Amino acid sequence: MNKYNHPGVPYFQHVSEHCIHYMSIDGVIFGFSENQLKVLLLRWKGTDEWSLPGGFIYKLESVDAAAGRIVQERTGLNQLYLKQFHVFGDANRYDQADTWQRTKMPLEGIKWSERTISIGYYALVNYSKVTPMPDLITDECRWWNIQDLPRLLFDHNHIIEVALHSLRRELNEQPLNHLLPDPFTIPELQRLHECILGTALDSRNFYKKMLASGQLERLPERRSGTSHKAPYLYRFQETQSGEILPEPGT
Amino acid sequence: MNKYNHPGVPYFQHVSEHCIHYMSIDGVIFGFSENQLKVLLLRWKGTDEWSLPGGFIYKLESVDAAAGRIVQERTGLNQLYLKQFHVFGDANRYDQADTWQRTKMPLEGIKWSERTISIGYYALVNYSKVTPMPDLITDECRWWNIQDLPRLLFDHNHIIEVALHSLRRELNEQPLNHLLPDPFTIPELQRLHECILGTALDSRNFYKKMLASGQLERLPERRSGTSHKAPYLYRFQETQSGEILPEPGT
Repeated sequence: MNKYNHPGVPYFQHVSEHCIHYMSIDGVIFGFSENQLKVLLLRWKGTDEWSLPGGFIYKLESVDAAAGRIVQERTGLNQLYLKQFHVFGDANRYDQADTWQRTKMPLEGIKWSERTISIGYYALVNYSKVTPMPDLITDECRWWNIQDLPRLLFDHNHIIEVALHSLRRELNEQPLNHLLPDPFTIPELQRLHECILGTALDSRNFYKKMLASGQLERLPERRSGTSHKAPYLYRFQETQSGEILPEPGT
Repeated sequence: MNKYNHPGVPYFQHVSEHCIHYMSIDGVIFGFSENQLKVLLLRWKGTDEWSLPGGFIYKLESVDAAAGRIVQERTGLNQLYLKQFHVFGDANRYDQADTWQRTKMPLEGIKWSERTISIGYYALVNYSKVTPMPDLITDECRWWNIQDLPRLLFDHNHIIEVALHSLRRELNEQPLNHLLPDPFTIPELQRLHECILGTALDSRNFYKKMLASGQLERLPERRSGTSHKAPYLYRFQETQSGEILPEPGT
């Protein structure tokens, strides 16, 4: 492939012309499946290098709308829970020469900022409803277990750590229903808490605490309709399930 | 005054040349005095219009360092507690024509971005140690009670509301010692909590809760050395008093 036919060239020319490029958005998309907390990553075209999904803010677009658009493009979801969690503003966030070499992007001749400040958002999404989609400059989009991440491009390992730390700190205020099957069992909820906290929890205490919280509603049926040992099914009360829709770009 | 002799002209030319100006920083500097929560505001040159202290990020400066510099310039403090709390990224944050007219800044002929995204930081500072200082483009810098704020320039009333909301939500994790005299009494601490929460608290419950938290250390002396009714003096245990110093600009 002639490097000027690389899809990165028209893509970055478009960004250079229409987007605010001192600032970017990086999205940490959390999912939960097979008892594992997962994060959605992209593999850059023609490389074995992975990064978070991210992008830039159009000149007339709010930052929240840009984050919603970026997550929506990768997941196909138009209803998702998004939270701005931190601005990554160090003067030297990562080794730029090393990173651009690893991406194999032909960037000569394209006006580019020396430095980008990134606004981190995390999304809580329902794993089973996501259709991972690569973009113009990536070959593959897939879930990774949070404890098996490769060495990512840019400072994205650090961004994921900070996102997980934020989620952990606000665990009881976040709408975890977005990550769980609907309805879910208490053992599933416990496993999700354990994945986020990175530590095992005592089942009896967890069960008591969750019931006492008043956040859960028990359904009449159990996971399997037959056995008396099958666990009960639960939902969060209405107040927990508020959804934030990406605003239309304004 | 010839408008091109206005100190705003060289100031904005400097910013336009050396700073990242799609992004700004706004600082909500909280102080506590006379049983009131206060915030430090600036009055724009030749006007009765007030705003938060704010500024831009130098090209080689981290965002945290820029925030530290801005707060330090207004307060004279080089040790302060600073927290990044939110990015204000709406496409139309405020009525630009109205705002620039109210500031009386002569901005024709200066290259300026159509839109600025602002990163909000709040600072907790010791009122008695602050020397409020206006800058090149303002005439006055002084404390305002949080419940008596004027209609501010830009979207700064909104930014203060969001800062107060963040502080409220994280009240028990924030180092409130930065706002209090050293040492302080339990009634002083209660009044500070009440100002931040915007609600009255029951004294006996507050006293019990604070003592049970294990965060406080009672000193041998009382506020006044003579009376037995004088309240005891307290300090936070060491773990509460961690200070974040502005990094040197890197």
